[in-house]
Parts: sequence; C-alpha cells; structure tokens
Amino acid sequence: MKEETRRVEVLKISGKTRAKEHDLVVKESPVTVFLNDVELVTLLCTPRDVEYLAVGFLYSEGIVKSKKDIKRLYGDRKERAVWVETAGKTKLEDTVPGKRFITTGCGKGLSFIDSSEFKGKLKKRSGRKIPSSLVGSLMKEFQKRSEVYRATGGVHSAGLANARGIVAFNEDIGRHNAIDKVLGESVLKGVKTNDLILMTSGRVSSDILVKAARARIPVIVSRSAPTDLSVKLARDLGITLVGFARGSRMNVYSHTWRIQSASSESR
Amino acid sequence: MKEETRRVEVLKISGKTRAKEHDLVVKESPVTVFLNDVELVTLLCTPRDVEYLAVGFLYSEGIVKSKKDIKRLYGDRKERAVWVETAGKTKLEDTVPGKRFITTGCGKGLSFIDSSEFKGKLKKRSGRKIPSSLVGSLMKEFQKRSEVYRATGGVHSAGLANARGIVAFNEDIGRHNAIDKVLGESVLKGVKTNDLILMTSGRVSSDILVKAARARIPVIVSRSAPTDLSVKLARDLGITLVGFARGSRMNVYSHTWRIQSASSESR
Repeated sequence: MKEETRRVEVLKISGKTRAKEHDLVVKESPVTVFLNDVELVTLLCTPRDVEYLAVGFLYSEGIVKSKKDIKRLYGDRKERAVWVETAGKTKLEDTVPGKRFITTGCGKGLSFIDSSEFKGKLKKRSGRKIPSSLVGSLMKEFQKRSEVYRATGGVHSAGLANARGIVAFNEDIGRHNAIDKVLGESVLKGVKTNDLILMTSGRVSSDILVKAARARIPVIVSRSAPTDLSVKLARDLGITLVGFARGSRMNVYSHTWRIQSASSESR
Repeated sequence: MKEETRRVEVLKISGKTRAKEHDLVVKESPVTVFLNDVELVTLLCTPRDVEYLAVGFLYSEGIVKSKKDIKRLYGDRKERAVWVETAGKTKLEDTVPGKRFITTGCGKGLSFIDSSEFKGKLKKRSGRKIPSSLVGSLMKEFQKRSEVYRATGGVHSAGLANARGIVAFNEDIGRHNAIDKVLGESVLKGVKTNDLILMTSGRVSSDILVKAARARIPVIVSRSAPTDLSVKLARDLGITLVGFARGSRMNVYSHTWRIQSASSESR
C-alpha cells in the first residue's frame, strides 16, 4: 500500500479534545499518456497500475480494441508517464489539440459516445442469469478487498467478476480511473469481458454505461445510486443495472430477468 | 425537486423478496455552454441552476473574474444550453478545439492550474478563526439541506458558509459541478468569497483546491477524505483543509490555527 498512500500530520479534533497524529491519505499524481509519441492526456490518479490505467483509458475511448492493437507499452512511475505504441496509426493522435488534463473525477473528456453506436450489438449481449445471492456475496468480497479505502476513505473501487468470484480489482481516487484500470488489465491479459459483471463503489452515470457497453459487459453492480440517463442507457443497451447493492438487498433498474431470485436458485 | 429527479420503475430485491416499485433517481443531462457564440463545452450535470453552473465553470477556468465580466447570460433548460457573453473577448473561445464533453465527475478538463499561479496571493488570505463547534453545526445544516441526496442517494452537495450559516447551497451528480454552482451563484450575486467556508460532501482532490484558491476561499470543510496532493496544495496556498467533518469530530490537515478548540471559545 506504500504506492497508494502517504502519511501526513493531521490535527484530530473530537469535541474539546485536540491531538496531533499521523494518518494515511491516498496519493494523487498526474500521469501523462503518450500515444505513438504524441502527448495525449494527463490523468490525475492514484499512481499504481498506471499501465492498466493508460490502456483502459484508450480502450474506453475506443482507440485500443484488444491486446493486438498494442505494439509496445512502457510505464515509468517516477516520470509519471506511460508510452503506448499501437500497431497502426490511430485517429486520435492527429486530432488531439495539445496538452489536456483530466482530473480525478473524469472519465471521458476527449469524446462522447452516443448509445446508438452500440445498438447493433444489443443481441450479442450475454443471456446468462445470475442468482441475487451471488450479487450479495460478490459485493462482500469486493468490499473486503478495498484496502486503500479502508486505510484512507478516499478512493473508489472497481472490479470484474464471474460466478466464481472477482477476477480483476483496482482502486483509484477517480471512479472512472478505477474502472479503466480493471478494463485495461482485462485487455492486457486477454480476458474476455462479455460475460463478466462490472462492480463499482461509485455512482453510475452515463459515462460508466458507455464504458461497460464498449467492453460488452452485460451486468453492472454498484453499491451506490444510478442517474436517470444511466438507467435509460442500460435499458437501451441491454445491460442489467443493479444499484444500492448492500448485503442481500439491491435495486435492479433494467433487464431484471438476469437477476434470479433466491427461491428459484434452490429449484 | 421535480427538476432534479425522475421516477423510474425498479425491482427491489431483499433476500427472497422481490417487489416492483417506483423510486426517484437523480437526473443527468448534457448542458452545452456557449461562450461568445462559440460552443465551449458540454457538461453532464443535474439540470438545475444551469446558469450558475456555466458561470461557475467559467470562473473556475479563470475566464470570468466577476459579475462585471458578464455582459449577457441566458440559460434554456429545454434546449439544454447556456449562452454567456463576456464584456471583452476571452482567450478561451479562440483556443477551444471544437466540441468537448465533460462528464459528471469532471472539474477541469480544459486546463490545469499550477499552485505557483496563486502563491503571490497567499498573504491576502483571510486571518479569521473559526470555532470547531461552528464546523460541526454548519455540517449539520449542510446535511439537512441535501434534499436530492436524501431522495436519490445519487448527488454531491456543495455550500458556501459564514459564521451565521450557509449562504449558498447546491447539489449535482458531479462533485465539481456542485461546487461550480455555488461559486457561480456567488459571482452573479456579487458575494465576496474571500472570507467564506467552502463545504463539500465529496472527496477533496487537487482540482477542488484550485477552485477554492481562485475564489480566495480560506477554509474547505469536507465530510470525506482528502488526497495527498490536495493536502500539499492547501499547505502551500494558505488554505485550512478540514476532512471527515462528522458531528463534533474532524481532521484538520493544514493551517490548523484557523480552527479554534471548543475550550478556547468559552474564554
């Protein structure tokens, strides 16, 4: 956890009591992504697994579609930079207007994708059903793994899971970055995501749906709330959106048929 | 609250119980800001007080410095657009590379400001001290006012406060948007912020510090965690950063002299 946290002095006040202590806070660093030697973007992030982050960012932007598209990848945490070389030229490095910064909350600053782009792929979305008890147990495992969150309270978590458990997990100060990190890991490891569950600690806004759609993920499970636009996109895109997943409780906002009730599991 | 929320059908699961109900979720809409007739940026936000949001965004970007800089302002919620005309030409509309989208988490996608920009202003920062009990009572009032949060669980809140209470308050799906809304309101109402407390429900990352520094705000109070970079910036910029403000408890990360203990208040 040394990579992700820093000890700082803090004055702790509780009523009339004041005490100087040391506490862990999460690290935030700028990391610059170079695409084919062009400076593409600087992300403010938790500086761990920056290669995953860079690849996940490019994947979410639609620039990198699979591991084959990446010819070379080099991350230098000290230099706070990741160099990505793609097999062919991409449309992006020609159109980028120079230095760009994306802060801790940002997911998609360079472009925006209309849900219509994905509509043709609707029928290919996974038909697998999931028992609601699995959602509960995955969320339990998800929270157990949130080490940096427990130490600092200052990060979001993201994960990819199947029926056997969580297959990718990461944390970042940005909820979009955390998701890009697990997507980047799956791209680099050649793990297919079209039958996986995307887990997030954060609110589900439209941009999270766009990321899931790109990765052809059929189910999103969040501990937190969705927006109306994310519910609409989930319905349009054939994605099951589960919010407020806490213990055995959850709200299912779209394509509810994928979440099997506890009673039908025992049949 | 009709502006900010939408009723959606949801399947509520609790153990073996499944029930179709209706629930409120927060609205998320794209709102496009035109600066002197140039399309500047599209923000994904909660579509209320979009004029405040647009002005606050331009203020955070350093484009609008006071009410005097704004010649005309017109927001059309149906068109999901805000037109801002400035008194003089700004540097921004010439350099903007075309359509830009900023999603719910984004605060600063167009530029990034070095803390050194603000260093000269350090000595001008307010010297006023604040009793720790005030932090507690303001946070209590802050949470009471979070109507959309209580209804949907899906928004962040931001406020500006003085010793008498909260003078500006807003909510948005984006933690940066919520802050831009209260800053925009203060700009349009000509309220000086250089002696106010900035309150936020969200994590404090470096970009939040940059917003506060622009507004010459001396104190930031958050319910949530800071990053190491935001602590460093707060120390450099002379800003008192309070995190985890809950009841009579709080962590003070920088310039602790501004937060007076409960015992010294009674003297």
